Amino acid sequence: MSTGVWLIGARGSVAVTSMIGALAVRAGLAEPTGCVLESPELHSDALPGIDELVFGGHDISSIPLGKKAAALGEAGIVPARLAAAVQDALLEIEQDVRPLPVRDTQAEIAESIGADLDGFRRRHLLDRVVVINVSTTEPAPRPHPAHADLDALRAALDGPDPVLPPSALAAYAALRAGCPYVDFTPSTGARLPALDALARGQGLPYGGHDGKTGETLVKSVLAPMFALRNLKVRTWSGTNLLGGGDGANLAEPAANAAKSASKQRVLHETLGYTPQGDTRIDFVEDLDDFKTAWDLITFEGFLGTRMRMEFTWHGCDSALAAPLVLDLARLTAAAHAAGRTGPLTELAFFFKDPLGQVPHALAEQWKALRDAVAAFDVRNTRR
Amino acid sequence: MSTGVWLIGARGSVAVTSMIGALAVRAGLAEPTGCVLESPELHSDALPGIDELVFGGHDISSIPLGKKAAALGEAGIVPARLAAAVQDALLEIEQDVRPLPVRDTQAEIAESIGADLDGFRRRHLLDRVVVINVSTTEPAPRPHPAHADLDALRAALDGPDPVLPPSALAAYAALRAGCPYVDFTPSTGARLPALDALARGQGLPYGGHDGKTGETLVKSVLAPMFALRNLKVRTWSGTNLLGGGDGANLAEPAANAAKSASKQRVLHETLGYTPQGDTRIDFVEDLDDFKTAWDLITFEGFLGTRMRMEFTWHGCDSALAAPLVLDLARLTAAAHAAGRTGPLTELAFFFKDPLGQVPHALAEQWKALRDAVAAFDVRNTRR
Amino acid sequence: MSTGVWLIGARGSVAVTSMIGALAVRAGLAEPTGCVLESPELHSDALPGIDELVFGGHDISSIPLGKKAAALGEAGIVPARLAAAVQDALLEIEQDVRPLPVRDTQAEIAESIGADLDGFRRRHLLDRVVVINVSTTEPAPRPHPAHADLDALRAALDGPDPVLPPSALAAYAALRAGCPYVDFTPSTGARLPALDALARGQGLPYGGHDGKTGETLVKSVLAPMFALRNLKVRTWSGTNLLGGGDGANLAEPAANAAKSASKQRVLHETLGYTPQGDTRIDFVEDLDDFKTAWDLITFEGFLGTRMRMEFTWHGCDSALAAPLVLDLARLTAAAHAAGRTGPLTELAFFFKDPLGQVPHALAEQWKALRDAVAAFDVRNTRR
Amino acid sequence: MSTGVWLIGARGSVAVTSMIGALAVRAGLAEPTGCVLESPELHSDALPGIDELVFGGHDISSIPLGKKAAALGEAGIVPARLAAAVQDALLEIEQDVRPLPVRDTQAEIAESIGADLDGFRRRHLLDRVVVINVSTTEPAPRPHPAHADLDALRAALDGPDPVLPPSALAAYAALRAGCPYVDFTPSTGARLPALDALARGQGLPYGGHDGKTGETLVKSVLAPMFALRNLKVRTWSGTNLLGGGDGANLAEPAANAAKSASKQRVLHETLGYTPQGDTRIDFVEDLDDFKTAWDLITFEGFLGTRMRMEFTWHGCDSALAAPLVLDLARLTAAAHAAGRTGPLTELAFFFKDPLGQVPHALAEQWKALRDAVAAFDVRNTRR
Repeated sequence: MSTGVWLIGARGSVAVTSMIGALAVRAGLAEPTGCVLESPELHSDALPGIDELVFGGHDISSIPLGKKAAALGEAGIVPARLAAAVQDALLEIEQDVRPLPVRDTQAEIAESIGADLDGFRRRHLLDRVVVINVSTTEPAPRPHPAHADLDALRAALDGPDPVLPPSALAAYAALRAGCPYVDFTPSTGARLPALDALARGQGLPYGGHDGKTGETLVKSVLAPMFALRNLKVRTWSGTNLLGGGDGANLAEPAANAAKSASKQRVLHETLGYTPQGDTRIDFVEDLDDFKTAWDLITFEGFLGTRMRMEFTWHGCDSALAAPLVLDLARLTAAAHAAGRTGPLTELAFFFKDPLGQVPHALAEQWKALRDAVAAFDVRNTRR
Repeated sequence: MSTGVWLIGARGSVAVTSMIGALAVRAGLAEPTGCVLESPELHSDALPGIDELVFGGHDISSIPLGKKAAALGEAGIVPARLAAAVQDALLEIEQDVRPLPVRDTQAEIAESIGADLDGFRRRHLLDRVVVINVSTTEPAPRPHPAHADLDALRAALDGPDPVLPPSALAAYAALRAGCPYVDFTPSTGARLPALDALARGQGLPYGGHDGKTGETLVKSVLAPMFALRNLKVRTWSGTNLLGGGDGANLAEPAANAAKSASKQRVLHETLGYTPQGDTRIDFVEDLDDFKTAWDLITFEGFLGTRMRMEFTWHGCDSALAAPLVLDLARLTAAAHAAGRTGPLTELAFFFKDPLGQVPHALAEQWKALRDAVAAFDVRNTRR
Repeated sequence: MSTGVWLIGARGSVAVTSMIGALAVRAGLAEPTGCVLESPELHSDALPGIDELVFGGHDISSIPLGKKAAALGEAGIVPARLAAAVQDALLEIEQDVRPLPVRDTQAEIAESIGADLDGFRRRHLLDRVVVINVSTTEPAPRPHPAHADLDALRAALDGPDPVLPPSALAAYAALRAGCPYVDFTPSTGARLPALDALARGQGLPYGGHDGKTGETLVKSVLAPMFALRNLKVRTWSGTNLLGGGDGANLAEPAANAAKSASKQRVLHETLGYTPQGDTRIDFVEDLDDFKTAWDLITFEGFLGTRMRMEFTWHGCDSALAAPLVLDLARLTAAAHAAGRTGPLTELAFFFKDPLGQVPHALAEQWKALRDAVAAFDVRNTRR
Repeated sequence: MSTGVWLIGARGSVAVTSMIGALAVRAGLAEPTGCVLESPELHSDALPGIDELVFGGHDISSIPLGKKAAALGEAGIVPARLAAAVQDALLEIEQDVRPLPVRDTQAEIAESIGADLDGFRRRHLLDRVVVINVSTTEPAPRPHPAHADLDALRAALDGPDPVLPPSALAAYAALRAGCPYVDFTPSTGARLPALDALARGQGLPYGGHDGKTGETLVKSVLAPMFALRNLKVRTWSGTNLLGGGDGANLAEPAANAAKSASKQRVLHETLGYTPQGDTRIDFVEDLDDFKTAWDLITFEGFLGTRMRMEFTWHGCDSALAAPLVLDLARLTAAAHAAGRTGPLTELAFFFKDPLGQVPHALAEQWKALRDAVAAFDVRNTRR
């Protein structure tokens, strides 16, 4: 099942690490560590293999993929020998990475994105193309009445003023072109009523939001632990220090607010109440793609006794995100093949801010994922 | 359903905190924070209420319960006002706390323990008595051929030499007297083939081992997190600093080894392999009943990138253990009423070193517990 | 040498803990732990004893000292038995705690403050009164031309608009009334050219700023360690979580900025350069007077190898500040007696943001303090 | 001033990192980060330059220096490009690295070591040779009466049984050959009365023990901080996790005990009392040359309020030790040139377990070092 993976932000660290990893796994140079679908319990013939993924994408940057890969190697984000070994293969992918189109209206931009997707699909004889947004986080968009209605949206996109933030425009273009869309960032993506209507009308699924790669992943197992033990969490404060392009972007107050809210949601959803404390994101350029998070949790036990827990997480953002991007491409392709439409709530396991009213405890999210994979298999077989 | 709770180690911190807590909750002076059975999902008419528990027990110490309670209040382990408020009620319990009997043979000691249990049951017209060991950890016992065979054991107990460690002797006596037995410590308890045979013969259930109150609790959610995400844990090293009576005892190499092994088991069981690193227990008297654990976890992500996590847990051992003791008394009473016999594998949620081949991931253990509670209900209703 | 200690913010946690402590030490109920002057190397007959300190002060709050003391006891900031033992003595101090005067002009307010100070001195036949600001942090004040010139300031204070922030007005009033002034907060205090001129004209010393009680104290020994070992600090990021009145106040962006700047100054001064990273202050009400700070330091060793250090500081702000307030009262009184005028740069040991161009490494600050104490002794003896 | 540096353990990580570093600094490829003597305050013409150091040594291993350097580069302990750049220069040093001699008596071994040292000195026309022990830690040696008396020692060394542990035999041989000796490990080295007599008789200085590279370095600034602030440290517990050759060795109980004692000494010396708690060393092979230490400190402030501090140190042992080895070679050479004999107590700044009754606070040790460097200059000039 030949599957295209079209990455918005194709020249960024997460995208290029995903490509290097897929190429290295295919060539037998690396293990698929961190790829959730490699677990025996999730094995399914409905899923395309890592070696069946074909990469392309859009980016506003023009730094060559090979050069970016070498930089990732020097920074210790991927092994330098792997970055070197896949240079030729990246040169091939380079043919399918295009600048983000510039046009007079958003309707025309969408048209142009759609043409790029069609070309990619035809050129590689792909069964389908999954579009995944891994570009940097947008500020929260201004509300617009056309967000709520597909016809109004179509009309508004023809006008001179931008109606949709870039991530939603990409989702619109993807869905129009018959491609499922997944947002790995906290940006808007397909999360608007008009786009939900479009997806359903097109018989397409979409997924998101905000890949769960570090601090929130830990929260999604610790918060249920306190809940199951009936311990009362009084405060939960988090600090995230991160460098890299996303760090600089998230230090902007508007993006920061969006991301921080998404990071605290798991607490309310799993505890049933919101403890005191906030989640902070600070930019420390020197940390580069490595991220250090520190959380302090104070809680109350039997007869009110006060106790506390702290944790520090020191992770490499791209190394944590990239295998999940491969998982999401494969899962979304299988969901599409199985005829799923609308929000892929079964992918909550992967996201900080999942679509739908879904469990936020990691163990429950994993079971939902396992059941969904099993169902894809059945549906695909039936066809 | 009037239920006796006979505590081995009845004058220790965990036992007295359990009593204070049960009395305070009954009197409306405290919330049952930390009591797992108070979760709505675990509600069941098959479970005796906290206010239906009647306390008694054995101890080698003779410090009055009221005095111990006051000391716990001064040390900040329970609120001083609660320790004061329950003095009268503790004086009543005092009538049912006896010195551990001293006799010539272990058979005679068991006889004497049984008589104490009978007297307790009759005096309070109890439906049943659950015996729970909360005394300090024993060194690992010497193997003895009689451990494997009930008849051989009976014969050996009549001899002059001790055959069973104290916890197993208590289990033997309890089971002979028709009482279910639970071991909250890493000691042997009922975990011998001869005693398993006795329990089954008597139609009695038993449970254990080693209450999961701190570092291992956290491990039981973090290790599955790494497993579900297919991240490779390379090392997991833990240090436990604890004061209090149990700390001094566990600093003894023999007891330490038993406890440390029990603390690493969760890693092998949930990861499927054993990472490098050990769990240490160090005695620091000044920390008293507060325990600080620090764990370092190093792991490998996509393409071999090295990452790390640390956590510190600063908990009050008695405040964490006591509500679980109340839960275990209620659950074991309900299991007995429902006709369960042999090892209560469904109580794995509570233990570091659970009986049977059971899941070690906390979320799965919780589901097993929930299902068991639901089943108790049905069975009790049927009768 | 009978010495008055007039506290601005006399009903706050720091002030009342200082009073309870001085009373308890005097009564033999507590050790002077945390009082720097109790070190044998700093012994000097030039210093008034803790038992020679007489307390009074201003506050906008009207909560009785005894009630505040009881609350501190309940919150575990001071032992409840000490809070109870000093109730009578606090009732006496109550006579000398006044509401902050309200008048039409700042000149009149200063006049009124001066009258309160005179009354206090006469009533208790004090050799001198040291005024110490322990109230909550002010926002950074607006610049005003009169801050630079004493005559202009005198004229401006007669006008209808406020010219000085409250701390500087208190300093002005104190100096006019012949009292040395110390600012334990990051607020302006006497740190204006016009007030420096006033202090010198009056032959009075003044001190500050911002008591060094936690994270910055640790920085003042760790930063020199990196410098002495010629290790290159690349980033230093700090997070301070604090509750209590000061926490709420410092969460305001303006006050936060002032405090954070004062907290990073030690890095530039001891390292000779400013590493990346910021110091954050977050308000978490539930933590009350206990403050948790976490710092991440990344550094570079031989041949560029990257390494890192983290620390967590969990301190009780009032318990750390109060003994320093007693030290500062005694030192400033001795400095005054010894004829010192102008900024007391020798008190840098106590402050995050010390006056003058002074060393920021704790060990050097301590030597400057020791030398100053020795010099007070000589000067006092000579008189 | 051409200075030989003869390293015992010349093929180990610390030795080879020292060589790579000296060569790289000399070639302008790296900065001397971590070299204490590069501080302007310690500049002295009495010190040989890094480019005047000539390397040789003994080792029981036969792994080529170039191969070891490449391995250090792969493990990220030194930059791979530097390990590559110095291959030719290491090949030259290779000529001066010999197997540790094997002979019938220790006297003969010492003779043979001396011959190696003489050959090295002559071959390179060196002004002097400093012998530095950087081999793995020995178990504590058995006492022997000959340790106390030089004549008895000489006689005993002729016997068939070993009298001295290897480090002391190396010291004996070095001193006999007219070479100053420094021990960077916790082993015995020159720390025996008989060897002290030998050093003084030969007019030679010696130094040690146990390079202060991580946790103890931090202790040597934090413990004085608590002391200067008159805060009472109640407990101080440390855990050291380390891999590498030294880690495996230190995990042996005998070596571990020696090292741990040396690590706690700083507390007693700077606080004036010994808090509760121990320092543990655990071997975790996977950590390789990176070492993680975690310390918990609980302390008491004003009126007995309990507080706590934790720190984690994540350092690369060789990257921290190597620049100190260069410093010690240069300092000891200058001390020798200046006519210093006996224990070099002024080098306490570098050691966990320094010789003599010296200050253990880092700031004071630095002043002693600075004064000593200044004195070397004067003495050298006079000659």
